[in-house]
Amino acid sequence: MSRILLLGAGRSASSLLHYLLLHAAEEGWQLTVADVNPAHLAPVLAAHTAYARAVAFDIQQETQLPELVLQADIVISMLPALFHLPVAKACVQHGRHLVTASYVSAEIRELDALAKAADILILMECGLDPGLDHMSAMRALHDIRARGGQLTAFRSYCGGLLAPDSEGENPWKYKFTWNPRNVVLAGQSTAKYLENGHLRFIPYQQLFARTTPITVAGYGEFDGYANRDSLSYRAPYGLDAIPTMLRGTLRRAGYCAAWQAFVRLGLTDDAVHLGNSADMTWAALVESFLPAPNGRETSLPDRTAAYLGLAPDGPEMQRLAWLDVFSARPVGLADATPAQLLERLLTEKWQLQAGDHDMIVMQHTLDYSLAGVPHRWESSLVVLGDDATHTAMAKTVGLPVAMAVRRLAAGLVAQRGVVIPTEACLYEPILDELAADYGIRFEEHEVSLQPGVPA
Amino acid sequence: MSRILLLGAGRSASSLLHYLLLHAAEEGWQLTVADVNPAHLAPVLAAHTAYARAVAFDIQQETQLPELVLQADIVISMLPALFHLPVAKACVQHGRHLVTASYVSAEIRELDALAKAADILILMECGLDPGLDHMSAMRALHDIRARGGQLTAFRSYCGGLLAPDSEGENPWKYKFTWNPRNVVLAGQSTAKYLENGHLRFIPYQQLFARTTPITVAGYGEFDGYANRDSLSYRAPYGLDAIPTMLRGTLRRAGYCAAWQAFVRLGLTDDAVHLGNSADMTWAALVESFLPAPNGRETSLPDRTAAYLGLAPDGPEMQRLAWLDVFSARPVGLADATPAQLLERLLTEKWQLQAGDHDMIVMQHTLDYSLAGVPHRWESSLVVLGDDATHTAMAKTVGLPVAMAVRRLAAGLVAQRGVVIPTEACLYEPILDELAADYGIRFEEHEVSLQPGVPA
Repeated sequence: MSRILLLGAGRSASSLLHYLLLHAAEEGWQLTVADVNPAHLAPVLAAHTAYARAVAFDIQQETQLPELVLQADIVISMLPALFHLPVAKACVQHGRHLVTASYVSAEIRELDALAKAADILILMECGLDPGLDHMSAMRALHDIRARGGQLTAFRSYCGGLLAPDSEGENPWKYKFTWNPRNVVLAGQSTAKYLENGHLRFIPYQQLFARTTPITVAGYGEFDGYANRDSLSYRAPYGLDAIPTMLRGTLRRAGYCAAWQAFVRLGLTDDAVHLGNSADMTWAALVESFLPAPNGRETSLPDRTAAYLGLAPDGPEMQRLAWLDVFSARPVGLADATPAQLLERLLTEKWQLQAGDHDMIVMQHTLDYSLAGVPHRWESSLVVLGDDATHTAMAKTVGLPVAMAVRRLAAGLVAQRGVVIPTEACLYEPILDELAADYGIRFEEHEVSLQPGVPA
Repeated sequence: MSRILLLGAGRSASSLLHYLLLHAAEEGWQLTVADVNPAHLAPVLAAHTAYARAVAFDIQQETQLPELVLQADIVISMLPALFHLPVAKACVQHGRHLVTASYVSAEIRELDALAKAADILILMECGLDPGLDHMSAMRALHDIRARGGQLTAFRSYCGGLLAPDSEGENPWKYKFTWNPRNVVLAGQSTAKYLENGHLRFIPYQQLFARTTPITVAGYGEFDGYANRDSLSYRAPYGLDAIPTMLRGTLRRAGYCAAWQAFVRLGLTDDAVHLGNSADMTWAALVESFLPAPNGRETSLPDRTAAYLGLAPDGPEMQRLAWLDVFSARPVGLADATPAQLLERLLTEKWQLQAGDHDMIVMQHTLDYSLAGVPHRWESSLVVLGDDATHTAMAKTVGLPVAMAVRRLAAGLVAQRGVVIPTEACLYEPILDELAADYGIRFEEHEVSLQPGVPA
């Protein structure tokens, strides 16, 4: 029998919890689901009370975390990332395994030796991005290397988007399926990547202007913008000498050029409090970021377009207007940062509606040389949400975590210390199970790039 | 007898220290000069040993600060601004007056009631900017109000620059006369001001593009860029209802457009460490911030100009080239931020040379209505450095502090608590003494803006 503790059972944990409940009886698990607001769990757990219970959990209450950890064999943390460190420390102290879908922080990395000494696994980055990106990339890399291929370029993009059937009239073709604040503040650091052996840096104010068009067969066109630090993935992927290495984020084509208008206006700044009133209108807010009018009477949208060098009726201005930023709509928060006001507006305009489906898109492009002939491996994943509960995001983040936990509980994972899923023994069974049981499958194909050979 | 403690006697304190030594004997002061490196003070104090001594001072050594404060009646802090809080706390605790040239921080403002209870003055912002700006502005405001004028616009600019005789071939017409890091990071927050009753915000990436041309009679053309928060000066100046309020910084004409190239390239970012080697060249660094070449063979400067939309032989590109940013010069620091690399380069290229003179320029423009007739008051200050020791910066920062201390020691300052020099009883004698004894004098004139009346 394994005792499994799930910390945090919000919307993003729905598919994870469903998987755990599905397999608990056959695997002999005792499941404790700890959430700040456990009331919503009662109907979910109703048919599983023999082996699953919900508890109210407050991370601020210092004694509760060690008590719960002590009563478990494996801990899953789906808490906000900043809480992973105290959870990891409790797991090290009490000798319990930990699995999360979040990035390894420097502080958690430092627990590696202690985790090994305690004979436990701290498996991080086992969700979607990070998670499935590592797994699918490593499987492709492993295959190419096994055939003697020399990697020359690694490009990987991922995005949490709207399914085509839910894009509707929204010209951004985007709604929030993840933390809105992270979307508004995305990219606010210089992005680093490697291209043909040269370091490349993109400062924030150019990031959404310097995008790459990405096509996914059957799903159309996307914009890819560079993630913060692509270089840090060379070592874990064993690509220290690769000339081109880029990881990025996908949005629907046209999103980035329009978002760049917000960046250039200054509406994504989160450092300054504007001293505004809550009933300031969006039109007045946009006005305040423009230079004073020069005497000619023109409309606010036209002045905005002229200031940004955009066509007054072009796609960027259409996207801004659709969000009501030139309207008398009140901003709704007093003395806020521009980013806070933008997040508040977008949280309303980009809210998922009942019946909406989300979509996860991931694409890797690996260039390599095989017996002197340039080749390319393309690997694409598209996952559509089932409904508002089992979103594509919840499935792709939660199922890899759950499958890793299942194997760990069954004694099938020998790794110890702080680990990410780059070893075949970890990722192969997960990728196989996702494909076989959930249809979450990468479409992969390989082409020769030799001149004269059709791709 | 007054015992005066000067904490920090670096270059910027030269004129302050000179003033204190000049008046110590007649005023009956005992002067203690506490500096981290007191060796350089021996020749300065040699003729004054009867009433002045130097001590080695280390702010990290916890017992020394209270000991020194206890032995003084008035403390002057010319330490870096972050050390003012512990000094102020020690002054409150031991009931000693404090005078500085630095901004009132929120933490120091909170000491107001304690300072009043201890019957002491904590006089802040008593240097140049902040300092002389308050004093000269308040004198003009006081005069206009006394005549019944209604203020409609307050615009004030200040800059620490090079004297025209020292600008030489340097196309930036700028060298460092103050903290280089602050110059490189200047403006990295959204600027806030008020124009014709409308809030105006300028995000960092537009700040050096949205400048105002400023002319100072006899000294030519300058660029003015907006300071971080002009709005916060409405209350202390009694201008809560004014429609236009702007404070800014001056650079020589053309500087800001060229600096904007650094901003747009991303070379002023201080948040990202680039993972570069110390022997990376400046050309390679600039290259790394450009998009990859598109196949056409063009030079790095030409590609930079094209990327930034600048004329290849225009003044901005000339200024960049003069700094060697397209050269094989090594950047000199490994794994640095862009801002650190830029600061290192500029510290060499913009270093004051023996024989260079600096220059302080300050200009206020106050618009007001007098019996229904629009008027304008213009007030300009230009101060030239005497030499490398008594720079214009050292004089204008240090002398107002020293003069305030002299009056405080003589019992002529009745204010208590945390104070800035906006009261006539404080600023009038200082402005008068600066004009009479040092020729530091605002050129002021007033014009009617009534149509048909020549200005």
